[in-house]
Amino acid sequence: MDAAPKTLLSRYLEVRRRTERLAEPLSPEDQNLQSMPECSPVKWHRAHTTWFFETFLLGPRGQPPIHPEWGFLYNSYYEALGPRQSRPQRSLLSRPSAEEIARWRRQIDERMAPLLEGLEDREEDAALIPLVELGLAHEEQHQELLLTDVLNAFSHNALKPAYAPPASDTVPDTPALRSPSDAPVSAMRWLPQEGGLVTRGASGDGFAFDNERPAHRVFLQPYQLASRLVSVAELKAFIREGGYHTPSLWLSEGLEWVRAGGREAPLYGRMEGEAYVVFGLTGEREAGDDEPAVHLSFYEADAIATFLGARLPTEAEWEHVAQALPVEGHLLESGPWHATPPRGPGPSQLFGTAWEWTRSAYAPYPGFRPAAGAIGEYNGKFMVHQQVLRGGSYLTPPGHVRATYRNFWHPHVQFQVTGARLARDA
Amino acid sequence: MDAAPKTLLSRYLEVRRRTERLAEPLSPEDQNLQSMPECSPVKWHRAHTTWFFETFLLGPRGQPPIHPEWGFLYNSYYEALGPRQSRPQRSLLSRPSAEEIARWRRQIDERMAPLLEGLEDREEDAALIPLVELGLAHEEQHQELLLTDVLNAFSHNALKPAYAPPASDTVPDTPALRSPSDAPVSAMRWLPQEGGLVTRGASGDGFAFDNERPAHRVFLQPYQLASRLVSVAELKAFIREGGYHTPSLWLSEGLEWVRAGGREAPLYGRMEGEAYVVFGLTGEREAGDDEPAVHLSFYEADAIATFLGARLPTEAEWEHVAQALPVEGHLLESGPWHATPPRGPGPSQLFGTAWEWTRSAYAPYPGFRPAAGAIGEYNGKFMVHQQVLRGGSYLTPPGHVRATYRNFWHPHVQFQVTGARLARDA
Amino acid sequence: MDAAPKTLLSRYLEVRRRTERLAEPLSPEDQNLQSMPECSPVKWHRAHTTWFFETFLLGPRGQPPIHPEWGFLYNSYYEALGPRQSRPQRSLLSRPSAEEIARWRRQIDERMAPLLEGLEDREEDAALIPLVELGLAHEEQHQELLLTDVLNAFSHNALKPAYAPPASDTVPDTPALRSPSDAPVSAMRWLPQEGGLVTRGASGDGFAFDNERPAHRVFLQPYQLASRLVSVAELKAFIREGGYHTPSLWLSEGLEWVRAGGREAPLYGRMEGEAYVVFGLTGEREAGDDEPAVHLSFYEADAIATFLGARLPTEAEWEHVAQALPVEGHLLESGPWHATPPRGPGPSQLFGTAWEWTRSAYAPYPGFRPAAGAIGEYNGKFMVHQQVLRGGSYLTPPGHVRATYRNFWHPHVQFQVTGARLARDA
Amino acid sequence: MDAAPKTLLSRYLEVRRRTERLAEPLSPEDQNLQSMPECSPVKWHRAHTTWFFETFLLGPRGQPPIHPEWGFLYNSYYEALGPRQSRPQRSLLSRPSAEEIARWRRQIDERMAPLLEGLEDREEDAALIPLVELGLAHEEQHQELLLTDVLNAFSHNALKPAYAPPASDTVPDTPALRSPSDAPVSAMRWLPQEGGLVTRGASGDGFAFDNERPAHRVFLQPYQLASRLVSVAELKAFIREGGYHTPSLWLSEGLEWVRAGGREAPLYGRMEGEAYVVFGLTGEREAGDDEPAVHLSFYEADAIATFLGARLPTEAEWEHVAQALPVEGHLLESGPWHATPPRGPGPSQLFGTAWEWTRSAYAPYPGFRPAAGAIGEYNGKFMVHQQVLRGGSYLTPPGHVRATYRNFWHPHVQFQVTGARLARDA
Repeated sequence: MDAAPKTLLSRYLEVRRRTERLAEPLSPEDQNLQSMPECSPVKWHRAHTTWFFETFLLGPRGQPPIHPEWGFLYNSYYEALGPRQSRPQRSLLSRPSAEEIARWRRQIDERMAPLLEGLEDREEDAALIPLVELGLAHEEQHQELLLTDVLNAFSHNALKPAYAPPASDTVPDTPALRSPSDAPVSAMRWLPQEGGLVTRGASGDGFAFDNERPAHRVFLQPYQLASRLVSVAELKAFIREGGYHTPSLWLSEGLEWVRAGGREAPLYGRMEGEAYVVFGLTGEREAGDDEPAVHLSFYEADAIATFLGARLPTEAEWEHVAQALPVEGHLLESGPWHATPPRGPGPSQLFGTAWEWTRSAYAPYPGFRPAAGAIGEYNGKFMVHQQVLRGGSYLTPPGHVRATYRNFWHPHVQFQVTGARLARDA
Repeated sequence: MDAAPKTLLSRYLEVRRRTERLAEPLSPEDQNLQSMPECSPVKWHRAHTTWFFETFLLGPRGQPPIHPEWGFLYNSYYEALGPRQSRPQRSLLSRPSAEEIARWRRQIDERMAPLLEGLEDREEDAALIPLVELGLAHEEQHQELLLTDVLNAFSHNALKPAYAPPASDTVPDTPALRSPSDAPVSAMRWLPQEGGLVTRGASGDGFAFDNERPAHRVFLQPYQLASRLVSVAELKAFIREGGYHTPSLWLSEGLEWVRAGGREAPLYGRMEGEAYVVFGLTGEREAGDDEPAVHLSFYEADAIATFLGARLPTEAEWEHVAQALPVEGHLLESGPWHATPPRGPGPSQLFGTAWEWTRSAYAPYPGFRPAAGAIGEYNGKFMVHQQVLRGGSYLTPPGHVRATYRNFWHPHVQFQVTGARLARDA
Repeated sequence: MDAAPKTLLSRYLEVRRRTERLAEPLSPEDQNLQSMPECSPVKWHRAHTTWFFETFLLGPRGQPPIHPEWGFLYNSYYEALGPRQSRPQRSLLSRPSAEEIARWRRQIDERMAPLLEGLEDREEDAALIPLVELGLAHEEQHQELLLTDVLNAFSHNALKPAYAPPASDTVPDTPALRSPSDAPVSAMRWLPQEGGLVTRGASGDGFAFDNERPAHRVFLQPYQLASRLVSVAELKAFIREGGYHTPSLWLSEGLEWVRAGGREAPLYGRMEGEAYVVFGLTGEREAGDDEPAVHLSFYEADAIATFLGARLPTEAEWEHVAQALPVEGHLLESGPWHATPPRGPGPSQLFGTAWEWTRSAYAPYPGFRPAAGAIGEYNGKFMVHQQVLRGGSYLTPPGHVRATYRNFWHPHVQFQVTGARLARDA
Repeated sequence: MDAAPKTLLSRYLEVRRRTERLAEPLSPEDQNLQSMPECSPVKWHRAHTTWFFETFLLGPRGQPPIHPEWGFLYNSYYEALGPRQSRPQRSLLSRPSAEEIARWRRQIDERMAPLLEGLEDREEDAALIPLVELGLAHEEQHQELLLTDVLNAFSHNALKPAYAPPASDTVPDTPALRSPSDAPVSAMRWLPQEGGLVTRGASGDGFAFDNERPAHRVFLQPYQLASRLVSVAELKAFIREGGYHTPSLWLSEGLEWVRAGGREAPLYGRMEGEAYVVFGLTGEREAGDDEPAVHLSFYEADAIATFLGARLPTEAEWEHVAQALPVEGHLLESGPWHATPPRGPGPSQLFGTAWEWTRSAYAPYPGFRPAAGAIGEYNGKFMVHQQVLRGGSYLTPPGHVRATYRNFWHPHVQFQVTGARLARDA
C-alpha cells in the first residue's frame, strides 16, 4: 500500500467524501436515530470522525477546536480526554444540526488540506503519517457502522424503510439477479492445511492497527477450512431440524441467550413457509439459498457449526489461509446492498461479504504495546470478553481490510454483517 | 362555556394551529427527540392528535384513514384498536418525516372542516359534539406535553439549547423582570375553610372529562389552604437545612427514590452558592426567591410540606376553594416561559403557574362510568398508583383547565410543571 | 376490649407463646427461608418482634439490649434507629441460630414480666400501656406474616412441603369436609345501604393503630355490598371466559402486570381440567367452588369485579357495613388452614377468611398525626402507592382485627390471603 | 497417580468423608445459605455431589434413584437430564433437611462400595474407572466451592461469623505466626524462559478433565515469569497511588465494573489506615504485607499488573513453568485458613495458595472432543466469555490440581481465592 504524502491528501478527501455520500440518502431525522446503545446516529458518526482529526491531528499542531464545547458531545470513549455524552443518549443531540455538522466537516477538511499537502517533503512531519492513516482507517470503520446502525434503526419502524432502492441491486451480472428459487447452493469444499510453525500478524511499514502487531510465530495443528461461508440453505436446515431448541448444540450462555430472547432465526430474518425473508438496506426480500447466512451472533455461528459437524476456525487458522489470497471480494460499493453467493469453487468470500466469527477471544499478541497517550485507548482496552472476527463484509470500504485485520465484538452481537465459516481438525 | 357548532369549527382551527405554532421553533431533528419512555417526540404529538380525529371522528363517518399503516405508529394506548409502536421507541420513527406529518395534518383539517361546518344545524349529529370537544381537549393536553417533553430532551444536551429566546420573557410588567436578588417573597396567608357537606365534580352540559363526573357530595373537616404555592425561598431553606437527607420528612418510598437517585434538588434545578439555578425553555437562569418551586415530585412536595409544618391538600379541599375563583392565571402564552411569582395577597396561582400535587390518589368518583368503546380507555384505566394534580400550569393552554379538572401522574414524576400548595387541619 | 394491666401480662404471654407455637412445626432450616424481599424468614419474625419490645419498652426503662449488635440485624425499617440488615438478605442470617433466638425470647419475656406485673397500679406508667398494646398488635401482625411467608417459600420447593398435615383440616362440622364436587355455591345477595353522612375511624380508649384515627365523618352515596366474597366458581368463570386475556377488564397497569408475568390464575392456583387446584399450608388440594378465591392481587380483584358487572367497595363503604357486625369469622386457629365457604345467607366473611381489597388508596385520615419518635414510622410513612384491605383472614390472630382496621399492600401483592367483595352503586 | 481399583474405593471414601468433615462446623441453618446465584448452599453441594454418583454411576448399572423426585432439586446444569431447581433459588430447599442429606450420602456410599470393591479384577468394568475418577474430581471441586460459598454468605452477616477459630491458624512454623508489621516482603524475581515449541495439555492414562486434552504443541516467544504472586504490599501501593481511579490502568469493561460498584479494594478487603484488613474463614484479620493479594477479579489482576509495569501470563506460559515443578504448596488442610506468604526465593506458590488469573480466554484445545451424553456438558459448553485460572488455592483439596489443570471463571468473579502472578516479554 502506497502511503506517500501526495496520495495521503487525495485518500483523505476520498474517504471524507464517501462518508458524506453514504449519509446523503438520509434526512436529518434519519441521521439522528439510535436504536440501542451499541449503535450511534449517522450524524454522530459524521461528527465523531471529524472530532478525531480535530483532536488528534489539528489540536497538537496548534489549531484549537472550532467549537470547544463539542468535544464533550463527540468524544466516544477516550478517558484521557475527559467526560462525554452518555453513549445511550447520543440521539438526544438534535443540536448541532446535520447542517452544522456538514459545515464543520468542510471547515476541518479545509484545515487538514494544508497539513497533508506536501507532507511527503517534510521529513520532520513523518511521525504524522501513521496518525493520518489511523484517522482514515477510523473513519472507514465508522462508514460501515453508519450503515449497520441505520439498518438497525430502520428495522424498528413498521413502515420498513429502505436505505437504498431495490433497483440499486440490479447490477448486471451479479448473482443477486438470479431468483432465489433457481439458486443452486454451490458445494462446500474442505481446504486442507498442513499447519506447523507459521507467522501471523502485521509487519513492515504498511498501515495496520496496533492490535495486529507484532508479527510472531504460532504453531498450528493440521486442519481444514471450508471453501465458503455457511449458506442460507444450511441455516434453513438448522432451523427446520429444531436447532434453536436443541440444547446440545449450544454453548451454555448461548442457550440462555436464545431462551431469554425467544429466538427462532438470526437478526432481521424469519421463515415464511419455505422462504427465508430478511430485512436489509433495500427493504425486505427473500434470501437465496446460496447466499451466506448473515447477522449471526457468535452463539449462532458456533451452534450451526456444531450442527454441521464442524467448528469455527481460530483466527490464526483463518489468517494462514487468507495470507495467500488477494484482498478481493464483495466490499462496499462493489456489489448489491446485501450479501451475495460465492462464485466458483473457492476458496471464496474470505474478504468481504460477511465478517467471520472465529473461535478466538480477542487478546493481545505476544509483545503487544498500545501507543502512548489517548490514542493508546484505541484497541487494547477492549481485550476481554469479545471474539475476533475476520475478513470484512459487503459494507466494508474497499482498501480497509487485510489478512491480518482483527475485528472484535461481543458474542451476542448480531447487528453487524456477521457470518460463519466452518473448520475441522484434520 | 359556549360550545355552539360555529364556535366549534373556529375553536378546532385555533387549537390545531396552536400545535403547529408551538412546533415551529423546532427543527425536524428537534421534533424527533425522546428522552425517556414517559416522553414522546414533538412530531409524534403532532401525529397522534391527528390520528385521534381521523380514528374517532372521521373513521366512524365513513372516511377511511389516509395512511392505514400509520395507525400502528400513532395509537398511544388504546388496546381496543390493536397493537402499536413500542412506547419507548417512538423516536425511532424518522419516517414519516415532519414534513409528511404537516401535510397529513392539513389533509385531516380539510376533512374535518365540512364535518364541523354547520354542525349546530344538524340535530342528528349532536352526539358528535362531545367527541369533538374531547378531541380538542386531548390536543390541548398534548400541547402541554409537547413542551414539557422537548424541555426534558433539551436538558440532556450539554449545549443547553433554548426553545425560546430569553428575550421572549421580557414582557413588560411581568414579575420576571425584577432581578432575583430584589425579589421579596410575598407572605403566605392561610385561607380558613369551614368544610362541611360540599359538592365536587362536574355537572351540566359544559365539556368535562369522564373522570370529573358525576358531581357528588363529600364531607370536609374544617381546614386551611395556603394563599400561594410553595416558593423557591422555602425550597432553598429545605435544601439548606438538609431536607434531602432527613428521613423523618419523607414517605418511605420517597426516601428510597431520593437515595437511589442521589437527589439534592428538584429536576432541572441546582444550588450554586446562594443562587437556585434552573434550566427551562429559555435556557438556564437564576430563579427568584418569590417564584414558586416547580418540577417537584409528589415525594418532594410532601416532604417540603412536612418540613414547613403542614401537609398537602386533598383534591376535594383544593376544588372547594377553586370553585369560587375565576379561572385566571399564568397559562400558556399569557406570560413568560417560566413560573412566575404570585401577585397580591391571593388566593393566587390556583389556576395556571404550576400543577399542584394533592394528597389524593387518583380514583373513580362514586357513580363513575367510562364511555363505551375504545374512547372509554381515556381515563378510567389509569386509576391506580397515581396522585391527582390540580389547576394547570404556565404551559396549559388557556380555556383548557377548570376547577373540577383532574390531572394525574405517578408520584415520582417531575418533568411536568408541578408545584406544591400547603394545607393544614383547622 | 379490656386492657387492664393484669390482663396485659397474660395477653402478653399468650401472644408470645403463640408465635413460638406457630414456629414449632418448622425446622431451623425452614425458619430461615426467604423467597422474596417482601417476605422474611420465620426466625427473623421471631427475633424482630422481640427486638421491638427490647427497643421500645425495655430500652427506655433503663434496660440495655442483651445483644447490642443484634439491633442492626432485626430493625425492620426504622430510620431513626440507624442502619440495618439489607431487607432482601435477611435469609443470610444463619447466625444467631434459631436456638439462640428462642433463648433471647425467653430472656426478654423474663424482663418484660416484672414490667407488666401490676402495671395497673402504677399510675405513673399509664403511658406504657398503649406501647405494650402496640407491641402485641405488632407481634400478631408478624404471626400472620410468618405463615404467609413460609407458604411462599414452600411454594418454590418442588417437593411441595406442607406446614400442617391435611388431617388437621378435618375438624368436624367444617365446610371443608364436603368434597369439592358436592359443594353448591351459596347465592350472593346484595345488601342495600342508604349511605349519607356516617362516621368512620377509631375513637375511644380501646387500642387502635394511629392510621385508624381520628374518627371523622364522611358522606356516602347509596350503594350495595355483596353478602359474601367472590367465589372460586366465579373465578373459574373469569378464567374460562378468557378474563386474563381481555384488556377491557383490566386497569392499564394490571394488564402490564398480567402480560409481564404470563399470568393465567391467581398465585398458588392453577386449572387442571375442570378443577381449580391450589397450594396452601396443608399442601396441594382442589378448592371447592363455594370457597372464596384468594391470593388475588388488587389488579385481579378489580378485573374480576368488572367482569361480574360490579366494582370493589371503598374502605368507607366496607367499614360502614362492618361496624354493625360482630367480629366473628374464620380467623387463625378457628378453622382449617385454608379459606372456607360462607355459611348461611350472610352478610358473611367480613371478618376473617380473606383480606378484602378496597378501591381506596392508603392515605391519612383528616387530622391524622403519627406518634412522636421512631414509633411514628409505624404507619404514616407508607401512605402512598398502596391500597387498603379490610377485615382479616383465616391467618389473622383472633382479637387482632376490628371494623376500623386498615391493612395496606401494593396492588400487585398476592402472597397475603387476599380476596374480593363486590359493591355497586345503588 | 495410581488409580488401581482398590485405591479407588479408599480414595472414594476419603473424598466423601472430607466433604462431610468440611460441613461439620456448620449448623443446618449455615448449610442452607446462598448469598448470590453463583454460590450454592453447603447442603446443596453435599447433595449434588451425591446425585452425581447416583445418576452417572449407579443409574446406568440398574440401580434406580432412592428419591426420584430429588433429581429435579440437585441437577446443576445438565440439559440432557431435564429441568431443575432454579439456580438462584437453591437456598429455598429447606427440605430435604441436612439430616436427610446425610442419610442419603450414607445410602449412596453403601451402594457405591460393592461397585468399587474389586473393580480392578473386573476387566469388563474398566470403562467405569474414569467415570469414578470424574466423580471424585467433581466432588473435590465442590469441596472448594463449599468453602468459598459459605465465606461469601458469612460476609453478609454483620456478626462476621468465623467458619474456623483463629486458633486453628496457629500452626507452629507457619508464616502466619509472624505479626503483619514484622513481615518483610520477599523480593520478586523474574524467571527467564526461552520459549519455543513446547507441549501443553494432558496426555497419558492419569485422570484429567476433557478440557485439558489433547496434549499439543504451541510456540512461545521468550518471556519471564514472576517467582511469586503479587503481594499485599503491592496491592497497597496500587490503592495508595489511586489505582482504582486511574482509567489508563484498566480494561474498558474493568473500569465500568469498578465505577458501577464504587470499588476501592478487592472483595472482603479494606484499608484501615495503613493496615489491609480482610475477612476470611477465621473472621477478620490484618493481612501481612508479604501475603499474596487474593479475591481479585481478573479486571483487578490485569490493572495491578499494568500498574507494576508487567502483564498477566498466558495459560501456556504458566503451564510451561509449572510442568517442571512438584505439585506442592499451600493446599486444603496443609496450612492455615488463609493465603500465606511465599517461602524462599521461589519459584513458589504456583500450586496452591491462590488460583492465578491468566491472560487466556477459556477455549477448546485443538482436537478437543467432549464426552458423549450428558457428561459431555461438564466443560465444553462453558468455553466462551471466561478466563482461565491455574494452579489451585489454599482451599483446593490435595491431589486435585495438576500443571495441566484449567479452571475458569468470568472476569468479574472475586469470591474464589484468586490472585495474580506477573509476566513480561523477554
